[in-house]
Amino acid sequence: MPDPLRLGIAGLGTVGAGVVGIALRHAELLAARAGRPIAVTAVSARDRTRDRGLDLSAFAWEDDPVALARRPDVDVFVELMGGEGGAALAATEAALAAGKDVVTANKAMLAHHGQRLAEAAEARGAVIRFEAAVAGGIPVVKVLTEGLAGNVITRVMGVMNGTCNYILTRMEASGLPYAEVFAEADALGYLEADPNLDVGGIDAGHKLSLLAAIAFGTQVSFSEVELEGIGAVTIEDIRQAADMGFRIKLLGVAQMTGRGLEQRMSPCLVPADSPLGQLQGGTNMVVIEGDSVGQLVLRGAGAGRGPTASAVMADVIDLARGFRVSTFGRPAASLAPARPARATAPAAYYLRMALIDKPGALAKVAAVLGDAGVSIDRMRQYGHAEPTAPVLIVTHKTTRDALDHALVRLPATGVVVGSPVAIRIEVV
Amino acid sequence: MPDPLRLGIAGLGTVGAGVVGIALRHAELLAARAGRPIAVTAVSARDRTRDRGLDLSAFAWEDDPVALARRPDVDVFVELMGGEGGAALAATEAALAAGKDVVTANKAMLAHHGQRLAEAAEARGAVIRFEAAVAGGIPVVKVLTEGLAGNVITRVMGVMNGTCNYILTRMEASGLPYAEVFAEADALGYLEADPNLDVGGIDAGHKLSLLAAIAFGTQVSFSEVELEGIGAVTIEDIRQAADMGFRIKLLGVAQMTGRGLEQRMSPCLVPADSPLGQLQGGTNMVVIEGDSVGQLVLRGAGAGRGPTASAVMADVIDLARGFRVSTFGRPAASLAPARPARATAPAAYYLRMALIDKPGALAKVAAVLGDAGVSIDRMRQYGHAEPTAPVLIVTHKTTRDALDHALVRLPATGVVVGSPVAIRIEVV
Repeated sequence: MPDPLRLGIAGLGTVGAGVVGIALRHAELLAARAGRPIAVTAVSARDRTRDRGLDLSAFAWEDDPVALARRPDVDVFVELMGGEGGAALAATEAALAAGKDVVTANKAMLAHHGQRLAEAAEARGAVIRFEAAVAGGIPVVKVLTEGLAGNVITRVMGVMNGTCNYILTRMEASGLPYAEVFAEADALGYLEADPNLDVGGIDAGHKLSLLAAIAFGTQVSFSEVELEGIGAVTIEDIRQAADMGFRIKLLGVAQMTGRGLEQRMSPCLVPADSPLGQLQGGTNMVVIEGDSVGQLVLRGAGAGRGPTASAVMADVIDLARGFRVSTFGRPAASLAPARPARATAPAAYYLRMALIDKPGALAKVAAVLGDAGVSIDRMRQYGHAEPTAPVLIVTHKTTRDALDHALVRLPATGVVVGSPVAIRIEVV
Repeated sequence: MPDPLRLGIAGLGTVGAGVVGIALRHAELLAARAGRPIAVTAVSARDRTRDRGLDLSAFAWEDDPVALARRPDVDVFVELMGGEGGAALAATEAALAAGKDVVTANKAMLAHHGQRLAEAAEARGAVIRFEAAVAGGIPVVKVLTEGLAGNVITRVMGVMNGTCNYILTRMEASGLPYAEVFAEADALGYLEADPNLDVGGIDAGHKLSLLAAIAFGTQVSFSEVELEGIGAVTIEDIRQAADMGFRIKLLGVAQMTGRGLEQRMSPCLVPADSPLGQLQGGTNMVVIEGDSVGQLVLRGAGAGRGPTASAVMADVIDLARGFRVSTFGRPAASLAPARPARATAPAAYYLRMALIDKPGALAKVAAVLGDAGVSIDRMRQYGHAEPTAPVLIVTHKTTRDALDHALVRLPATGVVVGSPVAIRIEVV
């Protein structure tokens, strides 16, 4: 039997404990598949005394993850601490400087420092793998980097934050407003310590920026992701959207357009009967479109001990098998700086506004839209008790510029009460 | 730039021409991703003069695929001729004997000779990759072999023959009987030269047997797949199933049970609102369940030039990157002979039968089912004009043995007219 691949695991939270669990439970199976044993040699975590339900006595312990990353008996540094910088970044840099391969689940670190880390890895002949950083158990990094490597990728879309999808589907099912469902999710422990990472779309935006880099051969550019969270989604919009055959999802879209790379993470309407529309609860879905393959849909658990540990272990087994691929699928030096484009791809939009209930109000709105070049596909005016009349409009495909042009001119009509809501419709 | 990876492509039909097309069109992109150029050096096909819309003049031509497989300027033999044996098998064996890697889309060849070919490859340090052989553009071989390598796989399911799914969804949509829709599909060119490969479930069964070998570490055992085609599916069953919230799919299921490996390819009822139930037309879907990852669903084009060529090219790029994995994910010598088990996993069943319309008929049927240990979950009796009354029964979970026990006893009741239809229900 060849030498074992020796892992040093930093971080023994949910995911770290899951990885150790698989390594112990399935040692024989992993060795058969990898062609060599997978051995945990050393671990590190903040609290040595915590009971994790695992026997760690066979592993060396390091209080300092940087020291763990440098140990001569560690071949692969498995970074499962999390956090954009700090100890995770320091230890990852130390591992790469020592020429060790890194497996990480850390989307924040890669979204912010991915290019630099990829260059550092390549300078020392090391590789970074990060399947667990995107969409949990769904092997989307592998599918995009390897399985679709023969394709020009045209678009990548995804619902990649289970907490947001849970909140949105729960709002629809229960009829409860955002604030109440948010409080429920918090009580259930579904939210990050900083909930804005979830509901602000940041976590999902990190993931999108990593997929975009692989898909389009560009440097990770998380700062260029147009981010909009779900905090402004109302139960009213969820209901009205449903009534017109749509569901609201926090949807990431990355596509290369003639004007540059478009990356958006924002609430979107999707057809209720599409795969994305039917996604319930905490499940994740990624849709990839390539010039040869057409559309590929991947659906699975986006978080949790088992699924995330499954992804980490897949990276480890790849390394044990001797698979070596550049971090973002091609040499870091060949990744082009992303030329960001903001929502240039035309789309249909859902508009909701309240009109003063008097003759001609709707005609004035229609005229403003028409003057801006925004044409109306469908429109509904609802019966109502208030002095204002709720109106829903689904536009034909238009640019965001044209729509914004119309929206700023609506107040001057004198018939629109409050701010209109405009949500993009993505057809999948 | 490192040396190119040199391909010899045998077979220039739809898929072969697609692969050559990608290699020519995306040469720069492929080289950037693979780290070296991908070059077609030689090709072979039955008819040299046919216009394929491609300029083949830069490639050496071989009339004999075996000669192509042995060419010293070919690193990877790409077998896209098809057919269980014959020239495809001879050329593949010649390539492996010469120590060359093989990329193939040939499910029939691997289903029948996979174990022997895998051993031949390993004896010479060569590898066989076959992403395109299963589910077209869906990278399911990679996902199962690599992306889920840290999991004990518990079940693999799939709708993997687009023609059958087209026929079944078209029957439901049009209300036309099987024979008419079959004729339509034939006229549209959707059927294999031997249509039984499609509608008899053989092609899909080939694919299932390959996935089962990877999933469970067993030798490919296509001969042990329980095969049942779609020829006996009636429009009546499609309608009644829909009425009870189900759709009928030609579904493959492979699972390891306490009694051995179960492999079935047969018409099944699936919930209409499940991912499998919602699969329309020629699209394929594979559902994989693992102990850590939970359930993963993959959906995409199962056939056609672009998707299949995408899968072939992914294998080629893996080889160019130096990825080397055993044919079925672990050394061929370590694959266990499959111990076949026939439908041991309990399931609910859909039963349709015609009863003589007289008091007590239904009670007699219920008694026979009950005596066999088959309990009834739901039952419907329909209004009717004929002297017999159609009755639908959905059972609770039961074994096939218990069900068969009941079915053979039904005629003795004297109230059942004709043969009852029994279709397994798979809950996904």
